[in-house]
Amino acid sequence: MENEKIIIGITHGDINGIGYEVILKTLAEPKVTESFIPVIYGSAKVAAYHRKSGDIQGVNMNIINNIDEINPKRINIVNCINDEIKVELGKATEEAGKAAFDALEQATSDLKKGRIQAIVTAPINKKNIQSDKFSFPGHTEYLEEKFSMGTPALMILMNDVMRVAVVTGHIPVSEVPKAISKELILQKIEVLNYSLKRDFKITRPRIAVLGLNPHAGDEGVIGNEESTIIEPAIAEAVKKGITCVGPYPADGFFGSGNFKKFDAILAMYHDQGLIPFKTIAMESGVNYTAGLNIIRTSPAHGTAYEIAGKNMASEESFRQAVFAAIDIYKNRQWSDEIAMNPLKIEPKTDRAGKIE
Amino acid sequence: MENEKIIIGITHGDINGIGYEVILKTLAEPKVTESFIPVIYGSAKVAAYHRKSGDIQGVNMNIINNIDEINPKRINIVNCINDEIKVELGKATEEAGKAAFDALEQATSDLKKGRIQAIVTAPINKKNIQSDKFSFPGHTEYLEEKFSMGTPALMILMNDVMRVAVVTGHIPVSEVPKAISKELILQKIEVLNYSLKRDFKITRPRIAVLGLNPHAGDEGVIGNEESTIIEPAIAEAVKKGITCVGPYPADGFFGSGNFKKFDAILAMYHDQGLIPFKTIAMESGVNYTAGLNIIRTSPAHGTAYEIAGKNMASEESFRQAVFAAIDIYKNRQWSDEIAMNPLKIEPKTDRAGKIE
Repeated sequence: MENEKIIIGITHGDINGIGYEVILKTLAEPKVTESFIPVIYGSAKVAAYHRKSGDIQGVNMNIINNIDEINPKRINIVNCINDEIKVELGKATEEAGKAAFDALEQATSDLKKGRIQAIVTAPINKKNIQSDKFSFPGHTEYLEEKFSMGTPALMILMNDVMRVAVVTGHIPVSEVPKAISKELILQKIEVLNYSLKRDFKITRPRIAVLGLNPHAGDEGVIGNEESTIIEPAIAEAVKKGITCVGPYPADGFFGSGNFKKFDAILAMYHDQGLIPFKTIAMESGVNYTAGLNIIRTSPAHGTAYEIAGKNMASEESFRQAVFAAIDIYKNRQWSDEIAMNPLKIEPKTDRAGKIE
Repeated sequence: MENEKIIIGITHGDINGIGYEVILKTLAEPKVTESFIPVIYGSAKVAAYHRKSGDIQGVNMNIINNIDEINPKRINIVNCINDEIKVELGKATEEAGKAAFDALEQATSDLKKGRIQAIVTAPINKKNIQSDKFSFPGHTEYLEEKFSMGTPALMILMNDVMRVAVVTGHIPVSEVPKAISKELILQKIEVLNYSLKRDFKITRPRIAVLGLNPHAGDEGVIGNEESTIIEPAIAEAVKKGITCVGPYPADGFFGSGNFKKFDAILAMYHDQGLIPFKTIAMESGVNYTAGLNIIRTSPAHGTAYEIAGKNMASEESFRQAVFAAIDIYKNRQWSDEIAMNPLKIEPKTDRAGKIE
C-alpha cells in the first residue's frame, strides 16, 4: 500500500471565492497529480466556468456521479450540485453556502466509508454556509463532531518556519478566558504531542506554550490565568513525559525568534497564533486539523472575494495543503507499523519531520 | 530655539536589567550626543558598575545632584538613589523597584517644570516597582495620570515598517471586551490622528482599525463587537473628517502586507498590535506615548533579566527612542508654529513624516 497512490477528496468550498481557481491551478501541474488521485467534490459546470475565467490549461476532468465511477488516471469531479447554480463572483449568496455544504457532506461521507484517504477543503464563507444542518463556526468544528477520537480536535497552522496550534479557535475574544482550562490545555498539549509524533514523525517533540495575557501576565500584575491555569497544565504535561515549556509572552517569543527552537507552539487563541504565522509567511500556510481519525488539510487563506475570478490568487497554499495531506497519510502508516512492530529502528528526523 | 539642543531626561529603569547597558552604549557614540543634552536620572555608582561590566568606553559622566547643575556639554547624571544600593543582576528586588520609581519621580518632576524637554525611559520591572506610590501596570498609565490632556494616552509602537497603537494596553485579555467602547475607540482614533499630524507631520494621515475577534467577527458569526462598537466608532471618526478604515481581520491584515498602505494601525489589545510589530522588527522598535502634554519614548523591549550584565544587549531600540523623542519635539515645534501662522506653506512629507 505504501507506494500506491492515495485518493484525496477536494471540496470546492465557496463557489464565489477563489476556491476553484486555486484547486484547478494546483491540479493543472502534471507533477502534482502524479502523486495522488484527485477527486473534486463540486460542480463540473462551475469548475468549467472558473477554468475559463482563470484561463487555466491542462485540467481535463472526468465527470462522475459518485466515487464508484472514479478513474485513477484522471482528475475526477463528483457532481454534487444542481447544474442550475449561479456563480456570483465575490458575493456571499445562500445558494453558494448550500453548494459548499452539499459538497462537504458528500466528501465526508466517502471519507467515513474509507473510500477516500484524506480531504483538502477549499475555503467556505462561514456565514452563508450556516443552516439547520451546519451550525459550526468552521470546518474544524464540523469535522470534530464527525470524526473525533474522544479528545478535542486541534487546529495546527504550519509552514516552513513554524507549526502553531490554538487552544481555542473560532470563538469571540470575550469567550476565550472562560473557554481555557487546565484540562483543555493539557488535552491540546497531548493531542499536539501525539500528532507531532504520529503525523510528523518527530521522535521527541518540543512544544512551547504561550501565555494568555500581555507579557504572560507579568507575574500576576496583568491577569493570573498563567499561574492558575496554564502553568499547572504545563506541569502536568511534563509529568506525563511531554517536553513542553512556557508560558511565554507571545510578542517577545515571536520577536526574538525563540519560536524556531520548537517543533510546535501552542497559542491560547486564534489571533495570537495566526497573526505571527501569517505575518511571517502568508502565502505558504497549511491548516491541518489534528486529533481526528481522518486526515484533513486546507489552505490558510479564506474565500478572498475581493480577488475572485480575477486570476490573481496564488495556489501555493493549496498545493502545500495537498502535499501535507499525502505526507501525513504516509507518516501515519509508518508510525502505525512501528507501533505494531516496536523492534524496528526509529529513523532520525529533522525539524520538518523528514527522514534524514 | 529650533537649532538649540534640547535636554532629554533618561530614567535608568530597573538596575538589575539591561537598562544601563543600552543607555551607556547609546551615549558612548559621540554622534548621538551631538544632537541633544543627556541627563540620566539614576545612580552614578550603578552606572559605573554597568559601564565596567559592559566594558563601555567613552562615557564620562558629570555627576550632579539636581538639574540646576547641568553641564550642556557633558553627559549628566542626576544622583537620585542612595549610594548603598546593591545591584543583583537578573533579579527582581524590592530595592531595584524603589530605585526605578525614585528616578522616574525626579525626572517627571523636572519634566513638569519644563526643565527637560522629553524623557526616554529604560525598562522597569512591572512587579517590583509597585508600591503605595506606584500602582500602575506600566509607565504609560503612570504618565497618563500626570500629563493627560483630558483625552486618553495612546501607546504607539513604531519602527521603519509600521506604527501600531493599541486601544487597551496592560490589562488582562478577560478585561479587553468590557474595556473597549465606541467612545474609547473614537477617542483613540482622534488622539492617533492628532499625533500623526502634530508629532509626525503627516498632513492627511491614513489609519487602519483592526477588529477584535478572529476574522473580525466573520459578519457576526464569531462575536459582534465589530458591528456594535468598532464600526460605529470608525463611522463617527470618518464623519469628523478622519481617514480611517476597518475593521480588518488582524491576521490577514498583517499577512497580506496591507498594513503598509497606512500611516498607523489601531489594534484593540496589546498582543494584537505587539505580536506583528515584534515579529517583523524586534530590535528596532520604539514605544511612544501619544496624547500627553509631554514627550516620552522608550525602547520596545523589557528588562531582559536573562542577559543582564552579559554585554549582549543591543542598544538599537534605545538609540531610536532617543532620536524619536528629538524628532517629535522638533515636529511639534514646527506644527505649533504652523498652527499660529496658517499661511505658511505645508511641506510635503513622506510616510515616515520626514520633509522631502
